[in-house]
Amino acid sequence: MSVMIGVPGDNVAGERRVATVPDVVKKFRGLGAEFVVRRGAGAHSFVRDEDFDATLADSAAEVIGKSQVVFKVTPPSDEEIDAMTPGTVLLGYLAPYSDVARLKKLAEKKITSFAVELIPRISRAQSMDTLSSQAAVSGYQCALIAARHSPKFFPMLTYAAGTIRPAQVLVIGAGVAGLQAIATAKRLGAIVSGYDVRPETREQIESLGAKFVDTGVSAAGAGGYARELTDEEKKLQAEKLAKAVALCDVLITTAAIPGKRAPQIISADMVAGMKNGAVVVDMAAETGGNVAGTVAGETVMVGGASIIGPVNLPSQMPVHSSEMFAKNLYNFLSPFIKDGVLTLDWDDEIIAGACLTHDGAIRHEGVKKVLGL
Amino acid sequence: MSVMIGVPGDNVAGERRVATVPDVVKKFRGLGAEFVVRRGAGAHSFVRDEDFDATLADSAAEVIGKSQVVFKVTPPSDEEIDAMTPGTVLLGYLAPYSDVARLKKLAEKKITSFAVELIPRISRAQSMDTLSSQAAVSGYQCALIAARHSPKFFPMLTYAAGTIRPAQVLVIGAGVAGLQAIATAKRLGAIVSGYDVRPETREQIESLGAKFVDTGVSAAGAGGYARELTDEEKKLQAEKLAKAVALCDVLITTAAIPGKRAPQIISADMVAGMKNGAVVVDMAAETGGNVAGTVAGETVMVGGASIIGPVNLPSQMPVHSSEMFAKNLYNFLSPFIKDGVLTLDWDDEIIAGACLTHDGAIRHEGVKKVLGL
Repeated sequence: MSVMIGVPGDNVAGERRVATVPDVVKKFRGLGAEFVVRRGAGAHSFVRDEDFDATLADSAAEVIGKSQVVFKVTPPSDEEIDAMTPGTVLLGYLAPYSDVARLKKLAEKKITSFAVELIPRISRAQSMDTLSSQAAVSGYQCALIAARHSPKFFPMLTYAAGTIRPAQVLVIGAGVAGLQAIATAKRLGAIVSGYDVRPETREQIESLGAKFVDTGVSAAGAGGYARELTDEEKKLQAEKLAKAVALCDVLITTAAIPGKRAPQIISADMVAGMKNGAVVVDMAAETGGNVAGTVAGETVMVGGASIIGPVNLPSQMPVHSSEMFAKNLYNFLSPFIKDGVLTLDWDDEIIAGACLTHDGAIRHEGVKKVLGL
Repeated sequence: MSVMIGVPGDNVAGERRVATVPDVVKKFRGLGAEFVVRRGAGAHSFVRDEDFDATLADSAAEVIGKSQVVFKVTPPSDEEIDAMTPGTVLLGYLAPYSDVARLKKLAEKKITSFAVELIPRISRAQSMDTLSSQAAVSGYQCALIAARHSPKFFPMLTYAAGTIRPAQVLVIGAGVAGLQAIATAKRLGAIVSGYDVRPETREQIESLGAKFVDTGVSAAGAGGYARELTDEEKKLQAEKLAKAVALCDVLITTAAIPGKRAPQIISADMVAGMKNGAVVVDMAAETGGNVAGTVAGETVMVGGASIIGPVNLPSQMPVHSSEMFAKNLYNFLSPFIKDGVLTLDWDDEIIAGACLTHDGAIRHEGVKKVLGL
């Protein structure tokens, strides 16, 4: 019998993505897999039930009950876990560091769960990297939010009575999201500067036509992320950054550290020194914010500056974020499906590294260590 | 004594612009004019009271009482007109076709009022043309609204797991706003098509890198605006347009006729034929809309399409829209100020053409005709 992959949907406020899309279903079917999808699961991503080449079911529990593999965007609810049987393979964002009760429940129920957050950041796994694909959406959206909210044009504009100067945009953090924000602000015609504590980003920032803000502080870290800075380094960084922040019309911050509180890079004093009418978009709002005064999900005025704290940005562009997410899951799982049969290879570095729970145990040493389990 | 120009501000819901800005005050002062500004009048445009080189006053009435000339963005309230004295010069948007009572009051009070809407659209007046300058803001904002709302990327994007195809954007109406929308969507990387009933726009649309949608219908009209189409022409246009509308991810409509209801170009059937997830931004929402189903100030879902009906778009970017508006007013009035004295030249075609009321009479023949006065 063919492996059955279930898509129960993500019935979570604000979540508009769906874990697979028709083009990806087709590719899996080419490997002999079958799908069962909850009616309406793709509605917020503008995928109609009939567009999936799948069996339809009326509830998440019914979908899960029929599935050997379950694809989710958001972590499963208690009810969804209850509907799984021992050995069910679960794949999606599982927020591994944030809910010990869920983690224990997954282990107790003997679910074989893979957290996309834990996929090793090795070269071969780039095509499975949901953090990167979704960050591209977030960075693009941050630039659009900033442009929409700014009281000024981004591009230079010559009109019959004069010329408008282009906006000055500063992007902090030059990961996938930051680089996409830089590229988008450049496309819109702004004058863009970029900053990151990792000095190797200079070339990437400059290759997009932006200026690199050199603070003299370097914090190259493991796994492509920055390490935490010392107090001394933070002080030096802050002094140099304050000058750049005071000059910009728009500030976009994208410095997040997975599983940790986001570093506060922009102090209240730096915000107070911003131009009247300046706009700040803090992409790290959900994990505490890079900017003093950020409130997740809100726009607050601090002096003459607006600080915007967007949440779940990928959900704001669900057609493409779902498509990218679905392709990432395909690239993760498809090597292990042949003629309709799923055979996981536990010697595979990616399978082993992304596994959160299996056969009754919490398997991920990093997660156990952080949570003290 | 120097001519005193007053800026009472625009205390109207949703209006964030201010009728002059510090740079323009400086230019007027160079001609010997003085300014009185209501405290807080520039706040929504991020202009602080102290940034104006002007006398400050606490109320609109106090400002107007001290002014020989009054600059407004929005039409004056009854209280503001009451505060004027015979011979006061009023300049701003006066919505000349929409409020007969206000028009009569301006005449009775012997106000010398100039409506920026009535400035003749001649070559020499381009630098005074607020309709054009503000339309540039509106068109830019329409493209940003569409990009923010679209569930898809505008640009092509290559990521580790595949390639995202660029969005297809169709812009209807290629005036200043439409061309700016085309340019902005192009900047963002979309594949853009443009359409206008005036065939001379083909070259302008193509010069921005967009494709011209040829319907075979031409409606070149007076004053740079399109004439109304015959029923036959509308039918032919609709057939050709329906095909283009069905293919696009984003539709932006910008076809407005000053003083008239906007033409409905996109029927309910055409909306029904749009892609699931399509986004429509109807810039003509305030004057009835170019699209069946548009509601001014709201976003409505019709089938799988979102129809957005933005209002007062220039106010959403008040720093630059105020700056442009202020420069337009400067270019209109400054030729008549010398050594601090205002002397209007009634033989000047622009002064005569823009005059709404003067010396107790409604002076504009076109307005009188439309209103039956």
